[in-house]
Amino acid sequence: MANCIVAQSGGPTSVINATIAGIVKANQMNPYYDHVYGGLNGIEGILKERFYDLTNMSDEENNVLRQTPSSALGSCRYKLKRDNVADFEKLFAVMEKYDVETLFYTGGNDSMDTVAALSEYAREHGITNRRFVGCPKTVDNDLQHIDHCPGFASAAKFISTVALNTWLDVNVYTRQEVFILETMGRDAGWLASSACLSGVVDLVILPEEAFDKELFLQEVKKSIDEKNKCYIVVSEGAKYADGTYIAAGEAKNDGFGHAVLGGAGNALKNMILDSGVAQRCKVQDLSTAQRCYVTTQSKVDVEESFQLGMSAHMRSTDGKFTGKMVALVRKDQPQYDVDFVAIDADKVANYVKSFPKEWILPNYRGISEEALAYLRPLVVGSPVIIYKDGLPAYVKPYYMR
Amino acid sequence: MANCIVAQSGGPTSVINATIAGIVKANQMNPYYDHVYGGLNGIEGILKERFYDLTNMSDEENNVLRQTPSSALGSCRYKLKRDNVADFEKLFAVMEKYDVETLFYTGGNDSMDTVAALSEYAREHGITNRRFVGCPKTVDNDLQHIDHCPGFASAAKFISTVALNTWLDVNVYTRQEVFILETMGRDAGWLASSACLSGVVDLVILPEEAFDKELFLQEVKKSIDEKNKCYIVVSEGAKYADGTYIAAGEAKNDGFGHAVLGGAGNALKNMILDSGVAQRCKVQDLSTAQRCYVTTQSKVDVEESFQLGMSAHMRSTDGKFTGKMVALVRKDQPQYDVDFVAIDADKVANYVKSFPKEWILPNYRGISEEALAYLRPLVVGSPVIIYKDGLPAYVKPYYMR
Repeated sequence: MANCIVAQSGGPTSVINATIAGIVKANQMNPYYDHVYGGLNGIEGILKERFYDLTNMSDEENNVLRQTPSSALGSCRYKLKRDNVADFEKLFAVMEKYDVETLFYTGGNDSMDTVAALSEYAREHGITNRRFVGCPKTVDNDLQHIDHCPGFASAAKFISTVALNTWLDVNVYTRQEVFILETMGRDAGWLASSACLSGVVDLVILPEEAFDKELFLQEVKKSIDEKNKCYIVVSEGAKYADGTYIAAGEAKNDGFGHAVLGGAGNALKNMILDSGVAQRCKVQDLSTAQRCYVTTQSKVDVEESFQLGMSAHMRSTDGKFTGKMVALVRKDQPQYDVDFVAIDADKVANYVKSFPKEWILPNYRGISEEALAYLRPLVVGSPVIIYKDGLPAYVKPYYMR
Repeated sequence: MANCIVAQSGGPTSVINATIAGIVKANQMNPYYDHVYGGLNGIEGILKERFYDLTNMSDEENNVLRQTPSSALGSCRYKLKRDNVADFEKLFAVMEKYDVETLFYTGGNDSMDTVAALSEYAREHGITNRRFVGCPKTVDNDLQHIDHCPGFASAAKFISTVALNTWLDVNVYTRQEVFILETMGRDAGWLASSACLSGVVDLVILPEEAFDKELFLQEVKKSIDEKNKCYIVVSEGAKYADGTYIAAGEAKNDGFGHAVLGGAGNALKNMILDSGVAQRCKVQDLSTAQRCYVTTQSKVDVEESFQLGMSAHMRSTDGKFTGKMVALVRKDQPQYDVDFVAIDADKVANYVKSFPKEWILPNYRGISEEALAYLRPLVVGSPVIIYKDGLPAYVKPYYMR
C-alpha cells in the first residue's frame, strides 16, 4: 500500500474543491491509498513538503468542501520546466519519502503540461511506481479534448444571471443607457458568450473575432436609435486584427504602468463617449467574483467536478494509470449527460480551445442557437447550499490551518 | 369605490417589486380599490397617463414578481418641486380623470418628499379624496425613522457573500495580495460595513469617518507585515476631512471628465502602489450587480418588502391615511421580528441616516459586535427561487409591454 497527493494549481473556480472531495470520498469507499495528502499551494508546496492529511474527512466536511469556492489547498503559478532537473529530482524524492504512488493535479493548460512532463520523466527514468493524473478545471473553458471544463458552468451561470439582473436594472429609466459587462476568459470567448443565455444581450465582443471599432460603434448607434439602450458584453481578451488587446490602451493610460488584462469595458466606454454615439455609459467588470461566487454554483458543474475526482481515483487503482487527464464527453442523445474518459495530458497541455467562429453571429449580434444549445444544459439546476448565519458555509482553507 | 396607483422611483433594489406584489395581493384579498394601476416610470409616467393595470395579477405572476429585481414599473429621477404648480395641478387632474384615491410611491428620501409635498398640497387645497402613501426602499439604508430599508438586506447579503468568496480566492497564492472591494452606499456606510458580516475584512473605509491616508497606509502595511495579505472594503462615498471624495481625484484623472461617484477602490489602489506599501493590488467594484443580484435575496428582506406593501394597502382602506410612510421597527426581544408602523413622510424626506460612529472600530478595523448584531438577522434565510433554464424566472417589465 502507498499514498496519494491531491493538489491544485492555477486560478481557482467555485467548484474546484468538489474534485478534491470526490477523490477523498472515492478513497473512503475503496481505500486503495493509505493516505490522501493534500499538497498545499500546488507543486510549490509539495516541493517544500507542505501537506494536510485529508484521508479521514467527515461527510459533513466533504459536503461543505463542495460548496467552498477557490482552492482550499491553495494554488500556485509555478510551472515545472522540463530542463529544471533539480525540481524533478526533488519532487520524486519527496514522493519517495512520503511513499506517494499517485499525484492528482487539478488545473488548466499549464497543470496538464506538468502532469505530462512528470509522467514523461518517470517513463524516461524507468520509474514505474510514481504516477500523475490530471483533473481539468478552468472557468475559461479553453481546454482541448473535453466537452467543457469544470468550473466554467458555474461562472457562466453567474455571468448570465448578472447580465439578466443588470439589464433589468439599466432599463428602468426612460433616459439613454449603454451598459457594458466585462468578463474573464483570457483569449477565449466562452465566458463572455455565456452571458447570451440571458437573452438580453445586444452586442457581444469576443476575442475570436478581430475587433472593428467602426462596425462596433455603428451597431451601438443602431441599438440607441432603435430603443435608446444598448447592453454590451465584452471579453477581457477582445483584440484588434493586429492582436493588440482593446484593453491595452487603457492599461497604458492609467499612468501607473500596471498593465494587466482587464479594462476592455472601459476601453469600449471611452470609444462610445468619444464618438458621441451615446452620452451615458456604465461599466461593470465582474472581476474575481465571477469565478468564486459559490451560491450560484451550477448543479451539473459541482456534481461533474465531484464525479470527475471519483473517476480519477477509480482509474488510478489499476496501478498503471499515468500521464492522463480525466475528461468529459457529452453523450450523443437528446437528454444532457456526459461520459468520463481519459485523455493523454500532453494532448491538452499548451493548447487553447477557442469559441467556435461558426457560432458567432455577424455584427456582434450574439451567438447561434447551436451555441446556446451547447451552453444551456450546463447551467441548469442549483445545489442546495448550506448556510451559516445567512452566508454560505465554507471549509477553512487547509493552507491556513 | 375608486382606484389606486402604485409607482416606483429612484434606484431599484432586488426586492422593490415585492412591495408592489404585496399591494396587489392585499387588494385581491380586500378589493377596496376597483383597479390597482401601475404607474410607469414613477411620477414622470403618471403625468403622461402611462399605466398598466395590475388588478388581476395571477398568483403565479405575483410570486415571480417578488423575485424580479429592479423596478418592474420603471423608475424616474424626476422630483416634484413645490413651486412647480403646473405639475401638481396636472397630477391631481390625472388622479381625478382616472378616479384615483390613493397613490402608493416606493422610493427613498426624494420619493418621501414627493409624498409629503403632494399630501401637503391636497391639505392646503382642501382636497380630501386624493391620498399619498410612501413605501421605503433603498439599498443605501439611509432613511430615518425605520430600522432598516427594504432592499438593503439583500444587497448586504450579496456584498458579504462576495467578500467571503473573493477573500477565499485572493488568499490561494503564497504571494503578496491586497484586494479592495468597492460598494455603493452614497454618503452612508451601511453597505460597505455589511461586508464585515463575512468575518474576513481587514480594513473598512466608511464615509462616516474622515479618511486619513497616512493611517490607512500604516494599517495596510501592518496587515502585509503580518500575513502578506490585506482585504479592504471601501464605500464609494468615503471622503477626506474636507469633504472631498477620495474618488474625486480618480474621476479627474481619467481624462474624460465623466465625474461620477465611484472609483474609491482605484483611488486606494493607487495610494497603496504609489506608497510602495504593497506591490500588488486588485480592485473589484460591485457596481450595479449589488443592488439587483436577485438569487441572493434575503428571505427576511423579500418578505418584509411584500408585507410592507400589504400593510400600506390595509392602512389606506381607512379612507384617511395620507402623507405617511410605512416603516419597520425592530421588536425589543431576543428573536428578530419587526412591527409595521406609520411615520409622517416629511420626517423622512431629505434626511440621511448615517452608520453610527460608535459602531466603527478604530483604525479601520471593522465594526462593533453591536453593529454585527444589528446586521446579522437581516441576511438570514434564502427564499426558494423559481428558475427557468438555469436562470431566475422574471416578470417582463410592465414598461416594456
